[in-house]
Amino acid sequence: MNGKKTKPVSGDAAHPRILALAKKALRRRLDAVMIGDEANVRALTGVACDNARLVVEPRADGGEPRVTFYTDFRYVPAVKRTAPDLKVADFKDFRRGNWKRIGFEGCMAASDYLDLKGAFPRAKLVDVLKDVHALRAVKTPAEIAAIAAAEALNDEIWARAQEDFKPGMTEKEMQRVIRAWMNALGDGEAFETIVCAGANAAECHHVPDDTPWRENEPLLVDMGVKLAGVCADMTRCIVPRRPSAEYRKIYALVLAANRAGIAAARPGITGRELDKVARDVIRKAGFGKAFGHALGHGVGYEIHEAPTASKKSDWTLEPGMLVTIEPGVYLPGKLGVRIEDLVLVTKDGCEVLSHSAK
Amino acid sequence: MNGKKTKPVSGDAAHPRILALAKKALRRRLDAVMIGDEANVRALTGVACDNARLVVEPRADGGEPRVTFYTDFRYVPAVKRTAPDLKVADFKDFRRGNWKRIGFEGCMAASDYLDLKGAFPRAKLVDVLKDVHALRAVKTPAEIAAIAAAEALNDEIWARAQEDFKPGMTEKEMQRVIRAWMNALGDGEAFETIVCAGANAAECHHVPDDTPWRENEPLLVDMGVKLAGVCADMTRCIVPRRPSAEYRKIYALVLAANRAGIAAARPGITGRELDKVARDVIRKAGFGKAFGHALGHGVGYEIHEAPTASKKSDWTLEPGMLVTIEPGVYLPGKLGVRIEDLVLVTKDGCEVLSHSAK
Repeated sequence: MNGKKTKPVSGDAAHPRILALAKKALRRRLDAVMIGDEANVRALTGVACDNARLVVEPRADGGEPRVTFYTDFRYVPAVKRTAPDLKVADFKDFRRGNWKRIGFEGCMAASDYLDLKGAFPRAKLVDVLKDVHALRAVKTPAEIAAIAAAEALNDEIWARAQEDFKPGMTEKEMQRVIRAWMNALGDGEAFETIVCAGANAAECHHVPDDTPWRENEPLLVDMGVKLAGVCADMTRCIVPRRPSAEYRKIYALVLAANRAGIAAARPGITGRELDKVARDVIRKAGFGKAFGHALGHGVGYEIHEAPTASKKSDWTLEPGMLVTIEPGVYLPGKLGVRIEDLVLVTKDGCEVLSHSAK
Repeated sequence: MNGKKTKPVSGDAAHPRILALAKKALRRRLDAVMIGDEANVRALTGVACDNARLVVEPRADGGEPRVTFYTDFRYVPAVKRTAPDLKVADFKDFRRGNWKRIGFEGCMAASDYLDLKGAFPRAKLVDVLKDVHALRAVKTPAEIAAIAAAEALNDEIWARAQEDFKPGMTEKEMQRVIRAWMNALGDGEAFETIVCAGANAAECHHVPDDTPWRENEPLLVDMGVKLAGVCADMTRCIVPRRPSAEYRKIYALVLAANRAGIAAARPGITGRELDKVARDVIRKAGFGKAFGHALGHGVGYEIHEAPTASKKSDWTLEPGMLVTIEPGVYLPGKLGVRIEDLVLVTKDGCEVLSHSAK
C-alpha cells in the first residue's frame, strides 16, 4: 500500500516562502491560496505529504498570514515534527472561509478544481502555480547544498559504473549497474536511467533494452540519483577509442554548445536567450533540426522544475536557480549525442555542479 | 532529462478497451473522449507515453470509432511499433472537431481542463475517468499473467531479503537490501519500500530511518516490485520468537481479518461490503479505531487503481479484478501489524497471488 514519500530538506526552505507567497497573494487580492501538490507543499513547509492542502490567508494589513496545514491523521505526527509552528487541521474541514478570490494550483486535478468551484460558486479562482514555481526556483542554501551533494554522488556513481561496464553488456544490464549503485549509495533513481548503445542514442526517448554495447560503439547515459529528497541529473557519452569522423564531429559540436550555454548562464538572461545561445551553435553547423528538445530545466525536489530554458521560456535566471544545460544532436539510425550538466546560477555567472569528465 | 517510462504489457489489453470506451461514450452521447493520463493511455493502447492525447470519437451508428493518437515526435516510433493500426497525429493538432459533448479525465490538470474549456467554450465537458478506471479494473489475461509474475517475484525477493536481514540493521539498510533485490531481479520498486522496526510500525506512513531492528522486535515490511510495467504489493510482519502477549493477540486478530477478507472476496460483493467483513473482525475485538485506513485497492500499471475496498467504495467486484486485502491495527508507541495479500477475483471466489508465509 500506501503511496511513496521522501524526506524533506529541513529548515530554511520553509516559512520564508510561505511569507513570500502571502505577499504575492495580497498583490493579487486573494483571500486565500490553497496548495496541495506534494513538491509545492514540501518546498513551502518542509513536510513530505501526499495528502495536504496548505491554506495561506494573507492579512490585508500585510501582517503575519494565517496558515493552516490540512491533512489526514496519518501525517499529523510528521507535520508536528517538521513544522511545529503550523496549525494542523483535519482535511475534511478545509472548505472554510468567506473567500471571494481564491488562488489554486493549475496542476491540481480538474475534478478537485470543479469541487472547489462547487464549494465556492461565487468565488473567482486564480491559478497561482507559476508564483509557487517561481518561489521554488530560487533555492535556499540548504537546498543548494543538498542538490550539490546529490550531483557529486551522481558523479561518483558514474565513475563506478564505468568501471563495471564491459563491452557485450546490454543496455538493461548497464541500467541495473547504475541503479544498484544509486540504491547502495543514495536513495535510488530520481528518474528511470537512460542507457543507449550505439545508434539507439538517436532516439532521445529510448527505453533501455537488450541491445548489447559493442566494442568501439559509443554509449549515452542520462542518470540522476535521488538523495535526501532532491534529485541529480547528468548526461554523458562514452566516446569510443576510434570514433567515426561523424561521431567525433557531432560530439565536438554538442560539447561546444554545452560550453556556450554554461558560459552564457548568469543572472538576467532569459531561458529563451540561454536556449538560443546553445541552439545557435548547433544551428550554425547545420544540425538545428537534429536538436529537437529544449536546452534545459530546473532540478530540485522534482527532476523537472522551473526555470525552463527553451524556445518559449519567459523565465529570467536569478542567483540560486539551478538549470540543466543539455544540448543534443540526434541522427536517426546513426548516432545521438547529448551532454548535460547541472549548473547553479551565481551572482555573476554560474557554477557547474556536475564534475564528470566530458 | 526526460521523464520516465515503462514498457507496456503488449497485446490483448489494448483495443477491446477502446471499443468498450467508445460504447460508453455513445451511451453518454459524447462526440469525443480525450485520454491523456499515462496509465490510461497504456491500458487502452499498450503504448507507454507521457505526452499523449488519445481521442476516441464514437460513431452514432455504433460502428468502428475514429481513434487518433496525438503525441509529439519523440513517441511516434513507439506508437507505430506498439499500436500500428492507430492513426498518429501531432499533439498540436488535437483540438479539432465540431464537438458538443466531450469526455475528459477528472485527473487531468485543472489548467489543461481550462484550456479545453477555452477551446470549446460551448461544449459540455463530462468527466469519464471512472468509466476508464472501470475498464482498467478488469484485467486482461496478459495483464493478470504479468501481475501474477510480479507478485511471485515479490515473494521471492521477500524470502531472499529475510535471509539477508540481521538484528542490528537499520530500517534504511533493510530497505536497501530489498531495493537491491528488486533492482537485480525486477525493474525496481513499484513504490518506496516501507520498513518499520518495533513500535515504528504503529505509524502507518512511517518513512524508514536509522532505527535499528533489535533482537526479538517485530518488523513490518510493505513492498512491491515493478516488473514489465506492472506492480506487485504485499505486506508482511516478522513476528519475533518471543512476542509480547499483546503483539501475539493483535497479530492473530489482523490475520483473522485478512483471512475473513479473502474468504469474502468474490464477484458481486461491493468494496464497501468487503471492507466491512474484515473491519468487523477488528471492530468486534475492540480495535476498530486502531484500523484507520481502507482495506484495499486494485493494482496494475499503477500501485493504486480501482477497485477500492473501503467504507465508501461503490465498486462491485468482478472476475478479473485485483484487490489487496490489507487490514491493520496500529497502537501508537507500542506496535503495528498489517498483513496484505493481493488477490485475483475469479468466477466463484478469489485466488491469492501472494504466497509468502504469514
